[in-house]
Amino acid sequence: MQTRAVFFVSDRTAITAEGLGSSLLTQFDQVAFTRNTLRFIDTPEKARAVAEEIRRAGEETGSRSIVFSTLIDADMRRIVAESGALFFDFVDTFIGRLEAELGQQSSHTIGRTHGLTDKSKYNLRMDAVNFALATDDGLTPRIYEQADVIVVGVSRSGKTPTCLYLALTFGLHAANYPLTPDDLGGALLPAGLNAHRHKLYGLTIDPVRLRGIRNERRPDSQYSSLQQCQYEVRHAEELFHHNGIPFVTTTTMSVEEIAATIVHELGLQWQLL
Amino acid sequence: MQTRAVFFVSDRTAITAEGLGSSLLTQFDQVAFTRNTLRFIDTPEKARAVAEEIRRAGEETGSRSIVFSTLIDADMRRIVAESGALFFDFVDTFIGRLEAELGQQSSHTIGRTHGLTDKSKYNLRMDAVNFALATDDGLTPRIYEQADVIVVGVSRSGKTPTCLYLALTFGLHAANYPLTPDDLGGALLPAGLNAHRHKLYGLTIDPVRLRGIRNERRPDSQYSSLQQCQYEVRHAEELFHHNGIPFVTTTTMSVEEIAATIVHELGLQWQLL
Repeated sequence: MQTRAVFFVSDRTAITAEGLGSSLLTQFDQVAFTRNTLRFIDTPEKARAVAEEIRRAGEETGSRSIVFSTLIDADMRRIVAESGALFFDFVDTFIGRLEAELGQQSSHTIGRTHGLTDKSKYNLRMDAVNFALATDDGLTPRIYEQADVIVVGVSRSGKTPTCLYLALTFGLHAANYPLTPDDLGGALLPAGLNAHRHKLYGLTIDPVRLRGIRNERRPDSQYSSLQQCQYEVRHAEELFHHNGIPFVTTTTMSVEEIAATIVHELGLQWQLL
Repeated sequence: MQTRAVFFVSDRTAITAEGLGSSLLTQFDQVAFTRNTLRFIDTPEKARAVAEEIRRAGEETGSRSIVFSTLIDADMRRIVAESGALFFDFVDTFIGRLEAELGQQSSHTIGRTHGLTDKSKYNLRMDAVNFALATDDGLTPRIYEQADVIVVGVSRSGKTPTCLYLALTFGLHAANYPLTPDDLGGALLPAGLNAHRHKLYGLTIDPVRLRGIRNERRPDSQYSSLQQCQYEVRHAEELFHHNGIPFVTTTTMSVEEIAATIVHELGLQWQLL
């Protein structure tokens, strides 16, 4: 199997370069990629050091390196591109067509990321994070009213990371309701959830996987026994079915996929912050 | 000012399409963009509906729409591209050069995102989120040992969202230590932090901005007075200076920028999950 050194290079956080670059690499499963992220490359000196590192990695692996770049500045782009690597330019590749289409020059400004830099967005996200933290594993009538979504599932089905991701990424007010054994076994929703049925979204998980997760938390307990996990998952899924609550099986999903699925299926209003 | 309808189209979460597409759009500040995200477009039927929506938006705004796509499937790409929009293909644009370079065909598989889908990564992130939640606003000696980083700052300087982002995105064990008025005024670090000086990272913030944030939480209190905010910020910054603790001013930064800065400056080992 061939080995390739891969570099994600950015004048800011490199999150965009990593996101698209990694997506492209997943389409090639016969290559061992060694990944390096070089962020805040915002001076020609840093760009030259980066170019040298990229060149050296190519010599060490015996094949030229691969660079995914979101550098905005033309000089720094040129310096890094001259490292001899295969250079993918995620900005320059598209900006010319956009300039032609829109009839204006791009500002070529470093630091205008899609991240939130104005107060209203910052406040929105802070509020959402505080909401998720305040309501983690517990609900009150006031909370029901304020929530955009109430994530429902048995203990350790992934509710908390999902709610935090919904808050941090989408600015959504995401509460969670843990289904305890007391809530399970019947066809009725726990009291109080009924009036907010349209906000409910269920998470379920393979019982074997759930046992593994719970076992790390409380080894060899009733809570983490396969029998208990099977019981809870079966009855939680029945509850979702009986009450028409949309749900998703999280076993092999990433947190961002779970969150995007909820936003998509409930048709929530949001914007990427 | 011209108006353009923009569509981010993906067979998965659309996070990558939104990330790069939004970055490109920020370079054009003379256009009013209306943004639409169409995720989980994974059948030809859905692609046709999307193409129709894009076509209609172009007619309504009087200019063709702009599409940023990470669709993997060639048929669906073609269907959407034929909507008459300006079509930016974030996959096909690069995949051919990668195939030539690596000497192999891409798998053209939908769903191989860069998200975590294997258990070890999921566990890593879950552990990190649980760590951040368990240690929010409080530290014990055991926590100090396990932390990759301890984020230090006055109340409402952005510690909690930053720690959660570090956990969710980088799988890092991020604890936070709130500097209270009792900790401020001298040159000494709070007891217990000294031994972990290399893990400390400070957050500071413009006092006027801090007053605004605190005022939403506790209006017209001593806690949210400008005088109090100025006092705490000044002494927190002095503490950072005296003790050689790196720190950043979060006033105009996004949470992802703060987190990436910490990872960068402390040289933390991590991988994008």
